[in-house]
Amino acid sequence: MQTTEKIEPKLVKLKTCLTQINDLEAAASLLYWDQATYMPPGGATARGRQLATLQEVSHSKFTDPAMGRLLEDLTPLETTLPYKSDEASLIRVTRRKYDKAVRVPAEFMARLSRHRTESYEAWAKARPTNNFALVRPYLEKTLDLSQELASFFPNSDHIADPLIDFADYGMKVSFLRSLFDNLRQQLMPIVEAIVEQSPPEDSCLRQYYPETKQLDFTLKVMRQLGYDFQRGRQDKTHHPFMINFSTDDVRITTRVYENRLDQALFSSIHEMGHGLYEQGINPKLEGTPLACGTSSGIHESQSRLWENIVGRSRGFWKYFYPQLQTFFPNQLGNVSLDTFYQAINKVERSLIRTDADELTYNLHVMIRFDLELQMLEGKLAVRDLPDAWNERYRSDLGIVPTNDTEGVLQDVHWYTNQIGGMFQCYTLGNLMSAQFFEAALWERPEISTQIEQGEFTTLHNWLKDSIYQHGGKYTAAELMKNVTGSVLRIEPFIRYIHRKYEQLYSL
Amino acid sequence: MQTTEKIEPKLVKLKTCLTQINDLEAAASLLYWDQATYMPPGGATARGRQLATLQEVSHSKFTDPAMGRLLEDLTPLETTLPYKSDEASLIRVTRRKYDKAVRVPAEFMARLSRHRTESYEAWAKARPTNNFALVRPYLEKTLDLSQELASFFPNSDHIADPLIDFADYGMKVSFLRSLFDNLRQQLMPIVEAIVEQSPPEDSCLRQYYPETKQLDFTLKVMRQLGYDFQRGRQDKTHHPFMINFSTDDVRITTRVYENRLDQALFSSIHEMGHGLYEQGINPKLEGTPLACGTSSGIHESQSRLWENIVGRSRGFWKYFYPQLQTFFPNQLGNVSLDTFYQAINKVERSLIRTDADELTYNLHVMIRFDLELQMLEGKLAVRDLPDAWNERYRSDLGIVPTNDTEGVLQDVHWYTNQIGGMFQCYTLGNLMSAQFFEAALWERPEISTQIEQGEFTTLHNWLKDSIYQHGGKYTAAELMKNVTGSVLRIEPFIRYIHRKYEQLYSL
Repeated sequence: MQTTEKIEPKLVKLKTCLTQINDLEAAASLLYWDQATYMPPGGATARGRQLATLQEVSHSKFTDPAMGRLLEDLTPLETTLPYKSDEASLIRVTRRKYDKAVRVPAEFMARLSRHRTESYEAWAKARPTNNFALVRPYLEKTLDLSQELASFFPNSDHIADPLIDFADYGMKVSFLRSLFDNLRQQLMPIVEAIVEQSPPEDSCLRQYYPETKQLDFTLKVMRQLGYDFQRGRQDKTHHPFMINFSTDDVRITTRVYENRLDQALFSSIHEMGHGLYEQGINPKLEGTPLACGTSSGIHESQSRLWENIVGRSRGFWKYFYPQLQTFFPNQLGNVSLDTFYQAINKVERSLIRTDADELTYNLHVMIRFDLELQMLEGKLAVRDLPDAWNERYRSDLGIVPTNDTEGVLQDVHWYTNQIGGMFQCYTLGNLMSAQFFEAALWERPEISTQIEQGEFTTLHNWLKDSIYQHGGKYTAAELMKNVTGSVLRIEPFIRYIHRKYEQLYSL
Repeated sequence: MQTTEKIEPKLVKLKTCLTQINDLEAAASLLYWDQATYMPPGGATARGRQLATLQEVSHSKFTDPAMGRLLEDLTPLETTLPYKSDEASLIRVTRRKYDKAVRVPAEFMARLSRHRTESYEAWAKARPTNNFALVRPYLEKTLDLSQELASFFPNSDHIADPLIDFADYGMKVSFLRSLFDNLRQQLMPIVEAIVEQSPPEDSCLRQYYPETKQLDFTLKVMRQLGYDFQRGRQDKTHHPFMINFSTDDVRITTRVYENRLDQALFSSIHEMGHGLYEQGINPKLEGTPLACGTSSGIHESQSRLWENIVGRSRGFWKYFYPQLQTFFPNQLGNVSLDTFYQAINKVERSLIRTDADELTYNLHVMIRFDLELQMLEGKLAVRDLPDAWNERYRSDLGIVPTNDTEGVLQDVHWYTNQIGGMFQCYTLGNLMSAQFFEAALWERPEISTQIEQGEFTTLHNWLKDSIYQHGGKYTAAELMKNVTGSVLRIEPFIRYIHRKYEQLYSL
């Protein structure tokens, strides 16, 4: 039997190997960030190759059989350590990721990586020109590759389960289907009752708002919410995102439309929510696979909590609206807080997911989730996807895209990743955000009043203590249970929606 | 005997391995660029670790014994290929670098890398506070490590030879000493004759020049000189540098002083000269160790050629000065071309190398070169370095630093690299630039007139054809011989200096 003295150097070795892999991944992330922000156009070809190389080197280091042996050798130590300890968590989570990673052949990874780049390029051309025919062969190959990827996990209940599992560990189609059906049933009556009514006036958001001033206001808001600019920065990109290279270098990006005030503002708060999560991870986890958000759904819950539950609340604007008016006196000087609050919460039948209000947003997600499953199951051919898409928009949202640019071509996910596991996280995030916020208010009821006073430290610290600091130590399910005392449920979200929209609309 | 059919797959394998290493090095370069440009301060600790990891991974891949076997197996093929072919050059140059790299133990590399980071941090604190005592222990360790590095190459004529060889392959102390002595003897009388005279008026450069307009003018000049902004960009950093991540992504940085017009302008043209070299490398060499400038000296010759021989020439400003006056009418509207031309070529006894005119610049370099050698030879202790530095400034330049910030602490080189091999490239570059430019004028005499007309294509193309395109295929010595028909000589530089400064000053 091995003694602890013999095993501990192996733990050091594990950490050393993992930090090396972490550093290679961080370098790949920086290559990606640079590509989206400052890279001159000529750099694209070499950049694609460099990204593939870094992924290949880090994947091959992680899936090295020596890593498997190391994890095996560490099992005795793991059993002697508390489940919640950093060390046991490191071994446990690494093993879980290792077991998945080794099932996927390196040759397949390289093939998938090359195809993703080609497919993305085709989509980038097809989308502005409304040309689904151009991406169709790429998407067909993506579907083949997605099915092949799923086939490396042959004992799954549903073909999509292993793909969902990459992003949202532990989630399964069977659970998500019933969760989403339930949610749809409860949401539809509210949505229908609202869209019957005459829509609130939101033209105040569509005036001319100069870019620099928008960015200045956004930075001011983020600073006050607690985003640390000593350990982060904001740049402009075509699509906003959050990315990090360590827990002390967490960057976000935004995009500004000078005729849409809400775009930069809420996308910045959204990405900042992701950023606060990464900035709040315990520094002791830095450089390990635990130093990241634990699942896509949990990550999205943090961005949506700040963007919607906080950022689109009346209390938040009670504090910030007078300041916004000072930034834009000509545009908003004569617009009341109520008019502004209604404008940023306007519910409508719309075509674009990322522009959707928080009520209909989930309907957009469920359409994509269902279509993903049908394609993976072989029940929907890629050639029939645009029609199926449009038909679902008609039945679920009562509105039909006039072209594929505002339809099936709008989201990048299927065109640069895979089909399957791409969209559930958004609705999971919405549901989780409400459940977390309810727990926060229950423990610290003063948070509501503090928000009206521009005071966010209590909420920020509660999130840090409850969620952020743990990084990837606990699964999403464990975190929900530990923090809210319950499994994921739709009720908190429905309660939140009722409370907010009954006040906003006559229901 | 192996046939070509058997060997060629090994050439493919060599290229694949080298491209992977190249990509890891490119990623490290991007980490460095980001650190100097946009990284938030909090990112520093992890960034140091990530840089070390990438260097370790790429070094260990390059020095893998499999690489040695591959190079050995390729020897028969190499002998059948023309010396000048890309393939033979790739094998030859890789072998040369491999043979050096394997002599240095990985353990030493890691030790050196860690020390460099610590030493740099100490210097960054010591320099502004004029505190040589703070860096002294680090510099002493650097000297030890530099001697240890040299000891891995025991059969050198001089302890500094292998260190010089890293930057300027083939150069030796014996040759450089006699070259530099000869140069000093020829330069000193001119310098002395000039500094006797009353200095030209250069207050026109020291007015208020707003940063944005300086940058705009600089970009305009670089575009016209031929720098491709589709494959490059310019950002601001504390110290200007050129860096590249592929031949299609070659970036430069600059720094702007609003009370010094010449700083941003000439440092931008200088770095652009490095950049033109990298942008002009044959795309077929991309991703291999041949896709880079062949030596520090040759690289410096390209930056100095554009900065000084072209950028500080009267013909250049005959064309650009009216445009510069349009950019800054209040500052330069009443300043004549001749006054401006004299101001940007003012020769003076000065303390700071990077601010020195092109005549005294070499004296600054030779002081450092000699002190490096004395330290390595054990004839000068680090504790005596500041005194030795000041004494040499008194004897060579007739001026003494009043503190170490403007003395021995001014250059970063010894504090973040090693002692030995750090400074010879600057004077080599000056000499080479004159020899290359003389060859260019001999072949294409129209270049002089074209410069006066703002037409730089002939010169740029000549440099591309003669030097840039070859990347690292030829050694500096081969390149000098191929392009100028002669070994490196000081006469072209002396002729250039005489011609220019006899016109500027009464000699």
